[in-house]
Amino acid sequence: MPTTLKEFESVWPQLVEDVKKQCNAYGLPKNALDWLEKSLNVNTVGGKCNRGMSVVDTTSLQLGRPLDKKEYFESAALGWFIELLQAFFLVTDDIMDASKTRRGQPCWYLQPGVGMIAINDAITIEGCIYVLLKKYFKTHPQYADFMELFHDTTFQTELGQTCDLLTAPEDDIDLNCFSLEKYSFIVIFKTAYYSFYLPVALSLMYLGIATPKNLQTCHDILIPMGEYFQVQDDYLDNFADPETLGKIGTDIMDNKCSWLVNQALKIATPEQRKVLDDNYGQKNKDCEARVKKVYDEMKLDQIYHEYEEKRVGEIRKMIDNVDTSEGLKKEVFEEFLRKIYKRSK
Amino acid sequence: MPTTLKEFESVWPQLVEDVKKQCNAYGLPKNALDWLEKSLNVNTVGGKCNRGMSVVDTTSLQLGRPLDKKEYFESAALGWFIELLQAFFLVTDDIMDASKTRRGQPCWYLQPGVGMIAINDAITIEGCIYVLLKKYFKTHPQYADFMELFHDTTFQTELGQTCDLLTAPEDDIDLNCFSLEKYSFIVIFKTAYYSFYLPVALSLMYLGIATPKNLQTCHDILIPMGEYFQVQDDYLDNFADPETLGKIGTDIMDNKCSWLVNQALKIATPEQRKVLDDNYGQKNKDCEARVKKVYDEMKLDQIYHEYEEKRVGEIRKMIDNVDTSEGLKKEVFEEFLRKIYKRSK
Repeated sequence: MPTTLKEFESVWPQLVEDVKKQCNAYGLPKNALDWLEKSLNVNTVGGKCNRGMSVVDTTSLQLGRPLDKKEYFESAALGWFIELLQAFFLVTDDIMDASKTRRGQPCWYLQPGVGMIAINDAITIEGCIYVLLKKYFKTHPQYADFMELFHDTTFQTELGQTCDLLTAPEDDIDLNCFSLEKYSFIVIFKTAYYSFYLPVALSLMYLGIATPKNLQTCHDILIPMGEYFQVQDDYLDNFADPETLGKIGTDIMDNKCSWLVNQALKIATPEQRKVLDDNYGQKNKDCEARVKKVYDEMKLDQIYHEYEEKRVGEIRKMIDNVDTSEGLKKEVFEEFLRKIYKRSK
Repeated sequence: MPTTLKEFESVWPQLVEDVKKQCNAYGLPKNALDWLEKSLNVNTVGGKCNRGMSVVDTTSLQLGRPLDKKEYFESAALGWFIELLQAFFLVTDDIMDASKTRRGQPCWYLQPGVGMIAINDAITIEGCIYVLLKKYFKTHPQYADFMELFHDTTFQTELGQTCDLLTAPEDDIDLNCFSLEKYSFIVIFKTAYYSFYLPVALSLMYLGIATPKNLQTCHDILIPMGEYFQVQDDYLDNFADPETLGKIGTDIMDNKCSWLVNQALKIATPEQRKVLDDNYGQKNKDCEARVKKVYDEMKLDQIYHEYEEKRVGEIRKMIDNVDTSEGLKKEVFEEFLRKIYKRSK
C-alpha cells in the first residue's frame, strides 16, 4: 500500500524540531529562530509531496512488506530532504521568474517583510538538508554517497535552470533560441534528476543495494520517464481542462520553452512560423489565442498522443528487461509509471 | 615564506577547466557553459584571496617546509573552495543589501542581462565546490569530513546572515534591536567561521591531523580572532583614513549593527541616545556627522584600543598555551594574528 500524505507529513514536525535544536545549540537569537521556523513551514509543507513519498514507497516495494517505525521515519526523512531541496529551488525560481503565487498563497518573497531575505531563507532551507542528513545518517555506511548524491542532483538542477533562464528570458523573445535538444537538456536536468532519479537512488542507498549496475538501471529508466512527465506537463498546460488541472496554463504567454512550441517550430510552415514569432511570449490573450489556433491546426494533441504511446512503450520494454540480479525490483518502476501514465492533472 | 596572490591565482584556470569538463560531460549547451564560465571568473577572482591563501600558508607552516607541486595545488584548491563559498555569499548578499559595486565593478546582478539570474549563478558557484571536491578529494580519507565541514560552515554563515538581515533592516531603523550579544552572534557566524576557522580546519584535514582536540583548539583561538577582526573592520569603517582604507565607510548611513554603535548604545546618556535614535541609519551626511560627533564625545576610538589590547592579550595567551601534542603548531595562529594586528586597511 502506498503511503499517505497524512502519514508522510506526520514526520515533518520532528525534523523542524531537530533543526531548531541545532540552531539553539549555536545560540541563534529567538527572532531569527522564529523566522527560520516559519520559512521552513511555509515553503516546504503544503505541496503534494509526490517526490518525498516515493522514497517511502520505493523502500517498501523493495522490501516487499510494510515498513517498521524506524524504516518509515528514516525513508520519510530522506523524502523530506527532497522536499527541502525543492523548496530551495521554488523559492529562488519564484524570484527569478517574478512569479506571483505558489500553492494558492503569495510567493514567499512577496509576503510582508520578506522581500530579498527570501534568498537567504532559500539557501538556509538547502542547508537544513545537510544538518538533518548528519543527524540521522552520519553512521550509515552510505553517508558520503548520500551527500554526494544531493550535491550532484543540486548541481544538475542548477545547470538545467541556467539553460532555461538563458533560453527563455521573458523579456527577450526569440524562438530561434529554442530547440528540442535544449528542451531535453532543460527538462532532464531541471526536473527529471531530482524528481525521478533522486528518490529511487536514495532508497537504494538507504537499503544498501545502490550498486553501480542498479543505479545505472534506475538512471536509464527514470530519466526518460521524467522527461515524459514534463512533456505531459507541457501538454496539459495547453490542452487540459483548467477545471481538472486546477490552474490555467500560461506557458504561451510566459515564453516557456515548452515541448509544444518546440514541436510546432519543427513542423511549422513559413506562415505558421510568422504567427508564432509574432505572438508567442506576449502577455496578451489575443496573441495567445493565435498560437493556440496554430497548435490546433497542427494537431499537436495528436502528435502528443503518438509521442506518449511510443515513449511509454519504450519505457515498459526497459522495465520488462530490468536485470534483477542485484536486488532491484521492477515494481518500483511500474509504480512510478502507473502514477503518471495518462494523468489528467 | 607565505604564498603570493600570483601563485595562488595560477591554480584557478585548471579549476575552471574541471568545472567546464563536468558540464560538457552533462551536455550543457554552449551558451549556458559560456555564461557559467563568465560568472565564475567575474565573481570568484579579483579579491585579495586572504582566506584561500591561508590554507596554503597553514599547510606549509604545519609541514615546516615549502610545499611540493601536488601539495601546493591541492591546498590551493581547498583555498579556492573558500573563495567560491565567499563568491556565493557575496553575490547573494549584494542583492539582499541592494549594493551597487563590488571590487570596483557594478555588482554581478547589476551587470547587463544578469538581474535575478544572479541568484542561480550564486548557487551554481556553491555547487562547483562539491564538483571540484569530488574530483580532487574523493579518495582522500577525510572526504566526508571535507563535505561536512563545508556544510556546517555554510549553514553557520547563513544563520549569521539571517540574524543580520533581521536585526538591521535598512528600511526599519530601531536601535532597540541591537545588542552586543546579537553583534557577537552575527560576526562569529557570518564571518569568523568561514574566514578564520574554515581555512585552518581544511588544512588540518588535508594533512590528516584534524583530531577532535586540534579542531577544538583551532575553534577556541580562531573564532575570537575572527570576532576581533570584524570589530577592527567596524572601527576602521569610521576611524580610518579613507585614503588608506581604500573606501569611504558607510556603516552609519547603512544602519549596520556595528561594534561602534553597540558600544555607543551601552554607554549613551539619554541625550546621546536621542541623537543616535534620530540620526543612525539615515541616508544623509548631516545625520551621519551627528552620530560621528557622539562617537568622538564618547572616545570610542580609545575604547576600541583598550578592547584591542585586552583581546589580543587573551589570544596571545591562548596561543602560548596551545597543546602541540597532536601535531598542531603555534606558528599557524601567530601568522594569522601577525597579519591582522593593528592593520590599517
